[in-house]
Amino acid sequence: MVSTPTDARKKVFDTIEQIEPVNAQWIDRAGQRLVKLTKPPDSLGQLEQVATRLCAIQATLKPVSMKRRIIVCAADHGVTVEGVSAYPQSVTAQMVTNMANGGAAINALARVARAGVWVIDVGVNGSLGPIGGKAKFSSHRVREGTANMAEGPAMSENDMLAAVVVGIEHAQKAAADGVALLGLGDMGIGNTTAASAITAVLTGLSPVHVTGCGTGIDQSALTRKINAIERALSINQPHRDRPFDILQTVGGLEIAALCGACLGAAGQRLAILIDGLISTAAAMIAVAACQHVKDYLFASHLSPEPGHKVQLEWLGHRPLLDLGMRLGEGTGASLAMNIIAAACAAFNEMATFESAHVSNHL
Amino acid sequence: MVSTPTDARKKVFDTIEQIEPVNAQWIDRAGQRLVKLTKPPDSLGQLEQVATRLCAIQATLKPVSMKRRIIVCAADHGVTVEGVSAYPQSVTAQMVTNMANGGAAINALARVARAGVWVIDVGVNGSLGPIGGKAKFSSHRVREGTANMAEGPAMSENDMLAAVVVGIEHAQKAAADGVALLGLGDMGIGNTTAASAITAVLTGLSPVHVTGCGTGIDQSALTRKINAIERALSINQPHRDRPFDILQTVGGLEIAALCGACLGAAGQRLAILIDGLISTAAAMIAVAACQHVKDYLFASHLSPEPGHKVQLEWLGHRPLLDLGMRLGEGTGASLAMNIIAAACAAFNEMATFESAHVSNHL
Repeated sequence: MVSTPTDARKKVFDTIEQIEPVNAQWIDRAGQRLVKLTKPPDSLGQLEQVATRLCAIQATLKPVSMKRRIIVCAADHGVTVEGVSAYPQSVTAQMVTNMANGGAAINALARVARAGVWVIDVGVNGSLGPIGGKAKFSSHRVREGTANMAEGPAMSENDMLAAVVVGIEHAQKAAADGVALLGLGDMGIGNTTAASAITAVLTGLSPVHVTGCGTGIDQSALTRKINAIERALSINQPHRDRPFDILQTVGGLEIAALCGACLGAAGQRLAILIDGLISTAAAMIAVAACQHVKDYLFASHLSPEPGHKVQLEWLGHRPLLDLGMRLGEGTGASLAMNIIAAACAAFNEMATFESAHVSNHL
Repeated sequence: MVSTPTDARKKVFDTIEQIEPVNAQWIDRAGQRLVKLTKPPDSLGQLEQVATRLCAIQATLKPVSMKRRIIVCAADHGVTVEGVSAYPQSVTAQMVTNMANGGAAINALARVARAGVWVIDVGVNGSLGPIGGKAKFSSHRVREGTANMAEGPAMSENDMLAAVVVGIEHAQKAAADGVALLGLGDMGIGNTTAASAITAVLTGLSPVHVTGCGTGIDQSALTRKINAIERALSINQPHRDRPFDILQTVGGLEIAALCGACLGAAGQRLAILIDGLISTAAAMIAVAACQHVKDYLFASHLSPEPGHKVQLEWLGHRPLLDLGMRLGEGTGASLAMNIIAAACAAFNEMATFESAHVSNHL
């Protein structure tokens, strides 16, 4: 494990150096196989693009979708003192406990996706309850929540780098464990405020255009939320060309870890399923730091948060699902895993026109 | 099994009599459970509506999503002589053989959905190849393909009723086997022509608005297809108020069987996953015959066929997926099964705010 700030900085930059774009040859080769399968050309729609991209990521014509893991990074946000959420900060610790005990939505959905859940405490503020071991849990608290970004940087540069490294190491561990699909999840009361701030900086759009009601706040809380973001941007002056500075000043510890997970996974040629507003903000920082990360991302779903559509357009990825889900935790990513599994199964298991003696034209 | 036309007619009308609307009490009760689960209200979006409807269909607060079965009804269409498809009629028999041997897209996707595939030959024209038993297969050929609907009725009333009964009996068998989710699939070269004709009659829209390129025809074939539908409607004069007459004159044997599957499944309180243009046309006929069938339908996905959007609007169902898939076979239904399974798992397995000691407000 990394222990000093110098080590952390080196780890982050070494990881970025390791990331290569996917080789377009695999896209062509996968396309050549797809036209031979017993179906009209392109008739499996986005499934064909998913299978093709998975081939390119894994550099193979025998793509795999197992094992699957969702890492849920959790942390608290000092900006909650501005009254930006419908829930008290204490809910973060309560929900982390619930997830580690198997009772949250992500636990149920991950079981259906045959994915393991790994909950990572990167900076929850306060004690967790008793944990029964139903999901894998690890504690890597960098600090107990961020400071209020509306009044200064959310965290120090060293804390940000330490949190990024937590994500890198979990992604590298996933690759070492043979994981093929890595889903990203989040938990942190107040984290849509940080994610919206990141989105505003990277897209250049005004906070009012990328900020929504999160878990369900009313109009006056939304006004406070937008105001807090505007103050955070004004006092911290984050710039789109300095992604790690954005992460440090208006980000969050779980967002930093999720950014690290994107970097670490891309470095290991591991397919990454981003989820909603939070993990997509983290992926944007990772792409801003290294554009090749984009090649490894799948956009699981579109959330109704107004900023999420903007984020996915910025990334240039089309979401697989649009079910009005706005829960985070990796719930969208877990649903999308089944779609990627289906794309992979069709690619690998279908007969060809030749092998099945099917005519492929009039 | 039903053997005479009189028996078939009685079976169809007895099945329709059996169908009841779902009891709205279950919708309310399911909603009362959903607000107690550890998530912001409505944050699982359409998954919550899916879980609620499944509770109502199964009349329970412990909905189940296993076992799962896809029935793929296959038949040929005399209208292919009009040059309406990109593939020769012989492909129907070849693809039925491929499906029964486990090599089609539906076989791969159904494995991911943990659904059994049951291929039913309701009226393929020509011999099948050797079948190795990888998928369940049954032969109930009512006749070897329909007649050309552009020149007269596609089939006789007795043939139509016999095909409907094949579907009813397979749905009743599914219920007896403990199936919880029944997916509908189709195979039949030329069947988008029949499905578009049905859609035009039931919606009152002109064929040009509901007819698309199916498996991938060019503009001149599309013109022939629309022309064939216009002639079929003109010579047969099907009327929206006589759904079985529509099925007989401009339908297909597999469409009749899928319509029967909807009626039979609704009569057994079994959730039905409709797929693309063909099975949705079949469901429309079933709903026109008995409006309560609508309560049992889930719209799996939206296909790019222009008629499919019109069909789903007519039914009043919002699709779960929109992945540009236009293959049929039940491929969309198999993907949607995982979403319904996830909705069901979240509903059954999540902790409540009380049980997990999570605060549910500020």
